[in-house]
Amino acid sequence: MADPVAVGVDIGGTKLVAAAVAADGTVVERARRTSPEGDATALVAVVTELVRELHRPGLPVGAGVAGIVTLDGTLRYAPNLDVRDVPLRHLLEERLGVTVVVANDATVALFGELQAGAGRDCDDVVMLTVGTGVGGAIAVGGNLVHGAGGYAGELGHIVVDEGGRRCPCGNRGCLEAYASGTAIGKRAAALVAEDADRVEGSSLVSIDEIDGRAVTEAAHAGDEFAQQVLREAGHWLGVGLVTLVNALDPARVVVGGGASTRAGVFMLPEAGTVLAERIMGGGLREPPPVVRAELDDDAGMVGAALLARRDAG
Amino acid sequence: MADPVAVGVDIGGTKLVAAAVAADGTVVERARRTSPEGDATALVAVVTELVRELHRPGLPVGAGVAGIVTLDGTLRYAPNLDVRDVPLRHLLEERLGVTVVVANDATVALFGELQAGAGRDCDDVVMLTVGTGVGGAIAVGGNLVHGAGGYAGELGHIVVDEGGRRCPCGNRGCLEAYASGTAIGKRAAALVAEDADRVEGSSLVSIDEIDGRAVTEAAHAGDEFAQQVLREAGHWLGVGLVTLVNALDPARVVVGGGASTRAGVFMLPEAGTVLAERIMGGGLREPPPVVRAELDDDAGMVGAALLARRDAG
Repeated sequence: MADPVAVGVDIGGTKLVAAAVAADGTVVERARRTSPEGDATALVAVVTELVRELHRPGLPVGAGVAGIVTLDGTLRYAPNLDVRDVPLRHLLEERLGVTVVVANDATVALFGELQAGAGRDCDDVVMLTVGTGVGGAIAVGGNLVHGAGGYAGELGHIVVDEGGRRCPCGNRGCLEAYASGTAIGKRAAALVAEDADRVEGSSLVSIDEIDGRAVTEAAHAGDEFAQQVLREAGHWLGVGLVTLVNALDPARVVVGGGASTRAGVFMLPEAGTVLAERIMGGGLREPPPVVRAELDDDAGMVGAALLARRDAG
Repeated sequence: MADPVAVGVDIGGTKLVAAAVAADGTVVERARRTSPEGDATALVAVVTELVRELHRPGLPVGAGVAGIVTLDGTLRYAPNLDVRDVPLRHLLEERLGVTVVVANDATVALFGELQAGAGRDCDDVVMLTVGTGVGGAIAVGGNLVHGAGGYAGELGHIVVDEGGRRCPCGNRGCLEAYASGTAIGKRAAALVAEDADRVEGSSLVSIDEIDGRAVTEAAHAGDEFAQQVLREAGHWLGVGLVTLVNALDPARVVVGGGASTRAGVFMLPEAGTVLAERIMGGGLREPPPVVRAELDDDAGMVGAALLARRDAG
């Protein structure tokens, strides 16, 4: 078993997972806890515990958080953890006495994919993580794009349909309102309520609370309506990719989260078709390949660990 | 007068302008020609003539072209010059015997603004050039973003309204179809033809071929309908900026072309309002300032010259 070079922590809304990670991205040892809610002190305590449980004193620590993180490692806002303005990097360095790096979860996931996954050998990559919401991250010339304030990569909030569906962010027409698991569940539920013809024969009509997972499972069981809903979400994902590829011309698009695994079978081919048909200069160039993330649920903690190792020098 | 350090050429669809440029971006001497059409050999000959006319043998030469340019300086496609697949950098280096850099016109314009204009002291900048069409360029961490194949920065073709207005690129709903001078002229003409109430009293009803310039002039003369049309285009510009700022978090947005000067009075305030209202995490951060380009028509040739100087190193 390779020696670990850093510890990575993935701070999600429901659970925290951590790992001691080797230089090649291999996970050497794992630990996990339930996420505390609305309590920054408890959050710092639980992360500290998790890191200590892995018994790797002295190793740098990286953390990816589902939220808005500034360049200095302050967690400005994490809706699912219900905390605001937590100087997480500073607090963890104080407690742990090692170099700590804190960044957005999609950003560290992209770093993991660049170093040890689907972005290997690529300098210019756009990543979309399509789960409950839609997150994203960008690499240009081999470097992560953080933006002037650390807010870059909010790719769930690129606008695909001005004035369209309302998004939790307050705007309308964001990609997240069309392609996220939440959006897929809502869309299926709305069609079940409104369009009896279209949903006839679908198993989803007998479900009380339709979510993205239910739609995906029905689609895999051969439910044509559920498959249509996922293809429609894939269409919107493709529209978002047209914007991102026209703006950034990445060598590769990496898609993580549910859309890359169970739902991906239905969503990704549709997204790829839209991208190929609508890209600017389509006759002159090939669209970049749209590939699945390889590190799956480990991407965040592996990427955070490798980022901490790089920054610790 | 400062010593020139490079020669810059701006290759547009109607004219070619060139200048000997000092290290601080000052234009020392100028020359110009009419653009040849559909003839790559003539294009190379005219650029060579222009550079020689400036009498600066040995200085590196930079050229910005309104078209798609690959990383190796090949002009893949320039619709307004009606040429395809011209290895422009190679041909010019052969003729001139100096280091030549060839890039997209908006890319070199952004480099000019970064070095000597509105992007001074900024590492992360998004630039939109709003003229007949809409072009763009991106800088991240002080570096121009070229993309994997040189196609990055096609910001006129980010999608703001899926399935919306048809764009010359073949897609629908691109920013260019809403905010360009061409789009503004078409929109005003369509409303004149369709909506007699709304255009009542407008001077534009008596114009046969309404273009963006006519709308802008009418707006400046106090024509309320023309002002509305420009504000509407500004609204769409703002929608595009929401996408770009959410994705890239630039420190500054620089707008060049007509939208930054005559039409800008009506377009930019509206674009800034939309950006501030709709940006992700709007309560947590200020939107980046949306400022006018400073180098105006010189941005392309000045930026091309400074880029050539940097690359000649």
